[in-house]
Amino acid sequence: MRQQVEPIQRMADELAKLPGIGRKSAQRLAYHLAATPIDQVRALAKALEKGREDIKLCTQCGNYTADERCAVCADYKRRQDILCVVRDPRDVAAMERMHDYHGLYHVLHGILSPMDGIGPSDIRISELMRRLESGTVKEIILATNPDIEGEATASYIARLVKPLGVRVTRIAHGVPVGSDLEYTDEVTLSKAMEGRREI
Amino acid sequence: MRQQVEPIQRMADELAKLPGIGRKSAQRLAYHLAATPIDQVRALAKALEKGREDIKLCTQCGNYTADERCAVCADYKRRQDILCVVRDPRDVAAMERMHDYHGLYHVLHGILSPMDGIGPSDIRISELMRRLESGTVKEIILATNPDIEGEATASYIARLVKPLGVRVTRIAHGVPVGSDLEYTDEVTLSKAMEGRREI
Repeated sequence: MRQQVEPIQRMADELAKLPGIGRKSAQRLAYHLAATPIDQVRALAKALEKGREDIKLCTQCGNYTADERCAVCADYKRRQDILCVVRDPRDVAAMERMHDYHGLYHVLHGILSPMDGIGPSDIRISELMRRLESGTVKEIILATNPDIEGEATASYIARLVKPLGVRVTRIAHGVPVGSDLEYTDEVTLSKAMEGRREI
Repeated sequence: MRQQVEPIQRMADELAKLPGIGRKSAQRLAYHLAATPIDQVRALAKALEKGREDIKLCTQCGNYTADERCAVCADYKRRQDILCVVRDPRDVAAMERMHDYHGLYHVLHGILSPMDGIGPSDIRISELMRRLESGTVKEIILATNPDIEGEATASYIARLVKPLGVRVTRIAHGVPVGSDLEYTDEVTLSKAMEGRREI
């Protein structure tokens, strides 16, 4: 037995494709599954396959949902006049954890990145423009990440949207709450100074 | 959307049952799978389910195998007169990585642990005794872990096997190669002194 047991190897190979799971962890997980009752392994396999099949994109905002519309879009109490534009559904989940935003979202499912060949037609920008046509939306908040691609995408969208008379805002950059000035990088510090407000 | 998207939650719940995968990692993996092409998720689910189904225990030693006998037992060049007794198939894989042992194995699939209600009949001790009946085996090496349960299991098996006239040995305990004396615990150091050899 110089080589691994083949079915265990097969499990480990697939598990190692997941992000954050290296060769060794995948091996360890495969051995764990080998010693797990077969019904439990079937339940895991089923949950992954069926789960993936059940995930749809909300027809309005592009967020993940099991239905036609996501829970945010389906909630008639949310403000319909404000859209928060984010890169992916994970960001929606992050924003919702804040419990402080009551408008709707628009999920781009990507970010402009000429280096990776991702242009405006590869992300859901035309869908965003179509949502603005009715005139219901009065403000869009650009909540892409504060990195090069995120900034570029935000400026690109701002340039498209402003002529429509819609208010365009960008989330604030600054020193994270609970962090230490001493360890904050210069770019963030300079953004924090630039965005200072009277108290 | 105060709560998670249901299919993603379902995936995360199952993934969080795996060892070393906490709530947050499970969530992250579920979102990753949601954005993964459905065919790749099916391939993962299939590999896990089919892999688990294909794993059998070697009819001779109890090691994992896809066939009737494991690769070690099926290898006629291995010494048939020496058995290395280990707790589980992971230990066989560890021993085989050493490339230095040419005998066979016996996998107990557990360790004596009265506290957890695991007694001699719950692990593969009777199968071990049956293997010794033919008289082919001249030595068994007890390679259970050097902890309380491992030592207790080793002594228990030694007491059973010695009367049969089979040589019973225990793997050496000592300072691991590449480690630092300063950071070695006292029990290991005392074992290393006790097991000292002339050079």
